[in-house]
Amino acid sequence: MIKEGDTVQLTDGKNSFFLKVKKGEIFGTHRGNIKHDEIITAGYGGEVKTHKGHPFMILRPTLHDIIMFGIKRKTQIIYPKDSSYITLKLGLTDGMKVLESGVGSGALTIVMANAVKPSGKIYSYEKEEKYIKNAYSNIKLAGLEKYVEIKHHSLDQPLPENFFDAAFIDVREPWLYIDNIKKSLKKGSPIGFLVPTTNQVSNTLQALKENNFINLEVVELLERHYKPVPDRLRPEDRMVAHTGYLIFGRNG
Amino acid sequence: MIKEGDTVQLTDGKNSFFLKVKKGEIFGTHRGNIKHDEIITAGYGGEVKTHKGHPFMILRPTLHDIIMFGIKRKTQIIYPKDSSYITLKLGLTDGMKVLESGVGSGALTIVMANAVKPSGKIYSYEKEEKYIKNAYSNIKLAGLEKYVEIKHHSLDQPLPENFFDAAFIDVREPWLYIDNIKKSLKKGSPIGFLVPTTNQVSNTLQALKENNFINLEVVELLERHYKPVPDRLRPEDRMVAHTGYLIFGRNG
Amino acid sequence: MIKEGDTVQLTDGKNSFFLKVKKGEIFGTHRGNIKHDEIITAGYGGEVKTHKGHPFMILRPTLHDIIMFGIKRKTQIIYPKDSSYITLKLGLTDGMKVLESGVGSGALTIVMANAVKPSGKIYSYEKEEKYIKNAYSNIKLAGLEKYVEIKHHSLDQPLPENFFDAAFIDVREPWLYIDNIKKSLKKGSPIGFLVPTTNQVSNTLQALKENNFINLEVVELLERHYKPVPDRLRPEDRMVAHTGYLIFGRNG
Amino acid sequence: MIKEGDTVQLTDGKNSFFLKVKKGEIFGTHRGNIKHDEIITAGYGGEVKTHKGHPFMILRPTLHDIIMFGIKRKTQIIYPKDSSYITLKLGLTDGMKVLESGVGSGALTIVMANAVKPSGKIYSYEKEEKYIKNAYSNIKLAGLEKYVEIKHHSLDQPLPENFFDAAFIDVREPWLYIDNIKKSLKKGSPIGFLVPTTNQVSNTLQALKENNFINLEVVELLERHYKPVPDRLRPEDRMVAHTGYLIFGRNG
Repeated sequence: MIKEGDTVQLTDGKNSFFLKVKKGEIFGTHRGNIKHDEIITAGYGGEVKTHKGHPFMILRPTLHDIIMFGIKRKTQIIYPKDSSYITLKLGLTDGMKVLESGVGSGALTIVMANAVKPSGKIYSYEKEEKYIKNAYSNIKLAGLEKYVEIKHHSLDQPLPENFFDAAFIDVREPWLYIDNIKKSLKKGSPIGFLVPTTNQVSNTLQALKENNFINLEVVELLERHYKPVPDRLRPEDRMVAHTGYLIFGRNG
Repeated sequence: MIKEGDTVQLTDGKNSFFLKVKKGEIFGTHRGNIKHDEIITAGYGGEVKTHKGHPFMILRPTLHDIIMFGIKRKTQIIYPKDSSYITLKLGLTDGMKVLESGVGSGALTIVMANAVKPSGKIYSYEKEEKYIKNAYSNIKLAGLEKYVEIKHHSLDQPLPENFFDAAFIDVREPWLYIDNIKKSLKKGSPIGFLVPTTNQVSNTLQALKENNFINLEVVELLERHYKPVPDRLRPEDRMVAHTGYLIFGRNG
Repeated sequence: MIKEGDTVQLTDGKNSFFLKVKKGEIFGTHRGNIKHDEIITAGYGGEVKTHKGHPFMILRPTLHDIIMFGIKRKTQIIYPKDSSYITLKLGLTDGMKVLESGVGSGALTIVMANAVKPSGKIYSYEKEEKYIKNAYSNIKLAGLEKYVEIKHHSLDQPLPENFFDAAFIDVREPWLYIDNIKKSLKKGSPIGFLVPTTNQVSNTLQALKENNFINLEVVELLERHYKPVPDRLRPEDRMVAHTGYLIFGRNG
Repeated sequence: MIKEGDTVQLTDGKNSFFLKVKKGEIFGTHRGNIKHDEIITAGYGGEVKTHKGHPFMILRPTLHDIIMFGIKRKTQIIYPKDSSYITLKLGLTDGMKVLESGVGSGALTIVMANAVKPSGKIYSYEKEEKYIKNAYSNIKLAGLEKYVEIKHHSLDQPLPENFFDAAFIDVREPWLYIDNIKKSLKKGSPIGFLVPTTNQVSNTLQALKENNFINLEVVELLERHYKPVPDRLRPEDRMVAHTGYLIFGRNG
């Protein structure tokens, strides 16, 4: 059942649109206009037609689809293959308080917020004010704004909170802030990082060792898609070769 | 804060143990005995000593660690790299009702239950009765038994429930049951499969097409670990080369 | 020392040209004209200037560079990562007679011819006459035409030669021709195949088993490039995800 | 036709043996003895029986099989996926003179010698005298000793030869010797390196840049094997995740 405020996905097989439903409003597509009221009436799995008669199927969007096709990107995002794995490695579950920095376009924030809701929260520190508005807008599209607090704050300053059950850091030089972060992270809690270069991995590992973090791990995930043709099954010609190296540890 | 009934992880850097805490009980290790009461007193991030003086750190276990090191395997399990991605691709969130078959050792069930709690539930149909007890025991270790119902049921029979928001199928010949599953899955809802061979991928894709499933995708994830040594950073010598192919679609 | 008829590579760091040197001739580039005689005088590692003063370094081209940047492609080619491995798996060495089909653009032919020269030869059967002229031209660019014979011939006809020490088959439905090929391949000799889909792999394996080929293997090679920056070392963003599956066996 | 001195492979499907054939000699296996004369009579693709009646098929060994199963390893070797690619990237062909250091167990030496024969030669400088005898023995097994010269020499000393058309360096700290190597390598000639860690890649790239090498590339090759079963085709469970990073450039 679709309620006012829900985000729905409209698809005609070629194009997908993501919108928050509001009674009385109209959504415009290149194939004609659609009344929000008709979307609510048709429900998930139902069909609506534009005023020109073009049909769209109504889907309940997955977080994967919202992140890959719905949100507006102002930065490089953390991809679902990585964000889903991060969530499991950090042990995120209902009720946890999580430090994130920076928020970027909010792609990881969305996945982590979904994992700690309804009683947990993501505290995301972003030093670039220009990204914050867009990130909030993306998080709202995913309907998760109640579980996220974004603060304009740089990691080189003492953190305003110090009760964190887990942390994920996606900044250019994480090794500069490890001792600062450590003060806000509960003892024994998991921490993760994403960095694109091997030099950053080395520097981050070094700082983690010096600050007595334990259970250090470095891992990368590769995602390979296949053409879904039963009698000519084969991998796609090209793939993303690299998003970043993931580093994990615990505050020992 | 550790409460009675919580699952905690004890680690001395070499060995990890997972136990549910109960006042008055004693946990035996090869390095000596530990009183549960002392674990509760020390709390997460704290330290306890065995009666022989050997120290263990107390950690709040991540789902990743429970699945990889805590649960008892009676079947091949679905690994975290796959189960976390599956959860995102199926769009699992608080409140959803999910069909799973079979339950196996419950590794995927745990990850999915964590994603739909507190108000959703996983309904897991398992045709091999012998696996069910162990799976329940594993799910209890993760503290998620309230969000899982396991039924001894084969997919070749009509399903007892028909209200599913999503489904994940991990059986040998999924293509035999697609039309049966389709009847229980809400229109537009996501479905996923894991199969190890390319022949199974082809057969499953064929059956999905014949049953008008849409948005078909085939993907595999590769997980590569590195030795976490800052000045000699390099991949591990060997890796898991294959767990299975993932297939996704929607009930169109 | 550069001799008349040698293929040389001219590079200015941005563009590379491959040409066969002939006294008295002139080579035109977008940066001006170069006299072949000056190339011969300067020698490998030397520099020539165009009449407009733009400098080019003269390199002895590797087979890798000729294949990737020098030859004209009228078909999908077999890439160096695969062709070099094929050569080693087939055990190619000076003196061997090798069956190839089809010739395509000659990229694999060049690598195999280099491996069997000076006393061996590649016999390449191509059923599409339109590809032959271009393939010859490419093989000449590599200076290997003495070690290759291309015949306009389809594998569904008895082969004109029957003395082969090894074979490599790159056609759409290799399983149709296995018994025909077997008659021309010496007992115990290695054979290889490249096919893009898993269905083709299954069909080819089936036919090889039915024809008593032994030591069957299926392998794929993935090639991942890194940005060569010492202090920001990282994989390229994208890579070729698939060229083909390689199948190997011996005529048992 | 098998000649005295040829290396042949005997296989019974389970075990493979590699031996150099010599008239009048006898080869002992765990299944009984075989007369070399009978091997010569039977020829490649033929069968011989031990004095106990156990049959072996006689194969002409591929370089791949000699390297993987025939040679004695006293060091980590360079694997065929890498050595075949190296040969193509260095542009090795009949007549070239190639610098190698160190020789290790001779696995790469064998592949490179096969590529430059009959009129070229590999000059292999090895600073550890203890490896040289074994390397020679392995190269003889491959029948390539005429095309290889191994010298007990360290790269920190001026090289005794300075006429090299190509070079491949597999030592722990190659960046220490780049300027020394450069003096012996013809201008414009290709050079390659294999190193296992990312730190070594960075250091080597840095030294190559400082010494004006051009066309720098870093690449790794991954080799994934499949179970060759037509109706249950799937990757092997595990694979080699890392042998080393390959670095290539030209002496600019």
